[in-house]
Amino acid sequence: MQINQQRLRSDIESNAEFGAIPTDEGRGRTVLTGSEADRRAREFFCERLRDAGLSIEIDEVGNIAGRWVPESADPEAAPVATGSHLDSVPEGGIFDGPLGVYAGLESVRAMQDAGLEPERPVEVVCFTEEEGQRFGGGLIGSAVATGAMAVDEALDLEDADGVPLGDALADIGHRGEGRLDAAGWDAWVELHVEQAERLTDAGAAAGVVTSIVGLSRCLIDVSGEADHAGSTLMDERSDALAAASEFVLDVERATNERRGDSESVVATVGKLDVSPNAPNVIPGEVSLTLDVRDVEYDSITHVIDAARASLDRIETDRAVTTSLEHPWDRRPIEMSDRCREALHAAGESADLDTIDLHSGAGHDTMHVADVTDAALLFAPSRDGISHNPLEWTDWEDCADATRVLAGALGRLASA
Amino acid sequence: MQINQQRLRSDIESNAEFGAIPTDEGRGRTVLTGSEADRRAREFFCERLRDAGLSIEIDEVGNIAGRWVPESADPEAAPVATGSHLDSVPEGGIFDGPLGVYAGLESVRAMQDAGLEPERPVEVVCFTEEEGQRFGGGLIGSAVATGAMAVDEALDLEDADGVPLGDALADIGHRGEGRLDAAGWDAWVELHVEQAERLTDAGAAAGVVTSIVGLSRCLIDVSGEADHAGSTLMDERSDALAAASEFVLDVERATNERRGDSESVVATVGKLDVSPNAPNVIPGEVSLTLDVRDVEYDSITHVIDAARASLDRIETDRAVTTSLEHPWDRRPIEMSDRCREALHAAGESADLDTIDLHSGAGHDTMHVADVTDAALLFAPSRDGISHNPLEWTDWEDCADATRVLAGALGRLASA
Repeated sequence: MQINQQRLRSDIESNAEFGAIPTDEGRGRTVLTGSEADRRAREFFCERLRDAGLSIEIDEVGNIAGRWVPESADPEAAPVATGSHLDSVPEGGIFDGPLGVYAGLESVRAMQDAGLEPERPVEVVCFTEEEGQRFGGGLIGSAVATGAMAVDEALDLEDADGVPLGDALADIGHRGEGRLDAAGWDAWVELHVEQAERLTDAGAAAGVVTSIVGLSRCLIDVSGEADHAGSTLMDERSDALAAASEFVLDVERATNERRGDSESVVATVGKLDVSPNAPNVIPGEVSLTLDVRDVEYDSITHVIDAARASLDRIETDRAVTTSLEHPWDRRPIEMSDRCREALHAAGESADLDTIDLHSGAGHDTMHVADVTDAALLFAPSRDGISHNPLEWTDWEDCADATRVLAGALGRLASA
Repeated sequence: MQINQQRLRSDIESNAEFGAIPTDEGRGRTVLTGSEADRRAREFFCERLRDAGLSIEIDEVGNIAGRWVPESADPEAAPVATGSHLDSVPEGGIFDGPLGVYAGLESVRAMQDAGLEPERPVEVVCFTEEEGQRFGGGLIGSAVATGAMAVDEALDLEDADGVPLGDALADIGHRGEGRLDAAGWDAWVELHVEQAERLTDAGAAAGVVTSIVGLSRCLIDVSGEADHAGSTLMDERSDALAAASEFVLDVERATNERRGDSESVVATVGKLDVSPNAPNVIPGEVSLTLDVRDVEYDSITHVIDAARASLDRIETDRAVTTSLEHPWDRRPIEMSDRCREALHAAGESADLDTIDLHSGAGHDTMHVADVTDAALLFAPSRDGISHNPLEWTDWEDCADATRVLAGALGRLASA
């Protein structure tokens, strides 16, 4: 199958205009769900779907599905689906999401151009609010499409100004009807940028994800006493930030030690807030988040146990109290063998190297894998940078990964 | 001399009504410079000065001086001055500032009641914007009165809404004329709450400050790389928060070690901001403040050198860059021996224990000591709490400290 690199590039570059931000280097965009930029990105996508002869359905939470029913296919057969998302983080890059959406569409056009006669319909999907930047949490469209979240619950999610998702979608004309049902798909494959450097390090064209990491998130509070920075001697202090600093380093150390058992384990204190946060006041309170991920659930448990032990030790060593909540815990998810095999086979046919790797991020595929056979394919990311205008994948690399995607979709739709 | 505890308490409690805030425990107030609460506090103070027969001058930056010229005194003699401030931090306590102002006035009334015949006039002063909560920096009135800041520079200081101090003072009728000149005083003594527990630990009635600590403040930035918390392996990270955590602990350790040479040295990382501060992003930037104080300037230098060495080490050990600015450096200030001796002698006469201690905080006295003989006296603070509605000094302790103050002022004014 021939992929039209120029057509794919043109779609992604046109999409990059919506919510484009000025940058010194790279190319950035801000596309929050329900914004004018989102409306324009969605309308352009629908136009491109129609241009390729796909019929369009938009569900009540704004998920868009373009459906191609070739003459060779049974219209009633469970379709093979592909896609990703068009929303972005604030000042994000132009590939995270759009590559998967437009590579999906390009795959259909390539199948059409090649005169392929698949037995199943093919759907190209754009999920709503993957990034969770306006309505929180993220992966909202795929959560609804897989039944993990009720339609009404999603529609009632509010942004920081109290605007519900349902109203925001209605405002841009993208609150449709019904519910896209991922359980009805025969298979799903998502192409996404890797957001890491394993592919470029290996010199591979694409990465076939073996499993998506499990993810635990904890909320930790450290309480000391906010005292005057001048009049409180060192041995009279109950400094919540010094205590929290020990915790950050304890968790980092425990995670690095665990890499002997599972190299992929990662732990991150990404958010840390100090109160009262004044130069002349000893920190009285620190709240922070701990995000732990691995393909092995035991490693996640190990790091969280180490985090609890660290807090116990710190409470003993320092005059602080601590608490740890663990509200979010998701086990690792294996990708479908037959979908992975289709991807490797497509790579081999196209004379492109594909390697196995794991995904440290969830992506919408995490939800879809709960209800049908699913796979996740990575394209190389320059320097591993993402969520940033410097995020970049060479156009040749975009096309190569799309060759693998199209080949796999063709195989799956013909089975 | 007899101190009238009830009269002193009544003044402080009346003053506590201005800007009073609702609290579950303790007693709080918010008195920002130029507010209605400030206007009422100032008017009440002037009324109480007049009731005691003092003449009032208000200078262009709102400093209030009540002047008592006893018949025994040479009106041209350099006066002995005392006082503090009436502004507060948001939701501050009722003693920080007002105790010194009204203890000063009570001292004059006590001298009058006792029929004391001092040779010098006595002034009771309220300095403007000690806390720096509306117009920044703090100690503004005393900076102007000592020539550390020009009158126009102070009047042009703007609050967060762009309102200049001069206009804010004019609005409440407290922008007066001329400049209160602290260099014209023969001596100055300020009574303030300790904001620490050394007096209660020692069971002493009052603390005579030997020196006010020197204070250095540094601004530190740590730059790593903001990457995805899921897809960036532990050995690929450049985590600015983990690096900053090492810095916080290095500084704490170096400061504790230095206590072998100078027990009073303290260092505080009070403000720390993480960017982008999201649970799923490795921190790319951390900016933080370092506040170092001691009575020995060498110890301050030692800790700041250790902070620089820590940053150098962290840059070597971790893939981060760092910077340290050192915009604020003030050497320790010795209090006047003759003023301190007057305070100890007054304590002895009143059969009250006075101890020597240092001050970790600046107070207006820090400025006054640059231009005349100055001393700072501390009253006990319950649990060392300050800048908080739980700030408390028992009325008996207020009266005892005022006995020491009045005795010292009487001695100084009779010399």
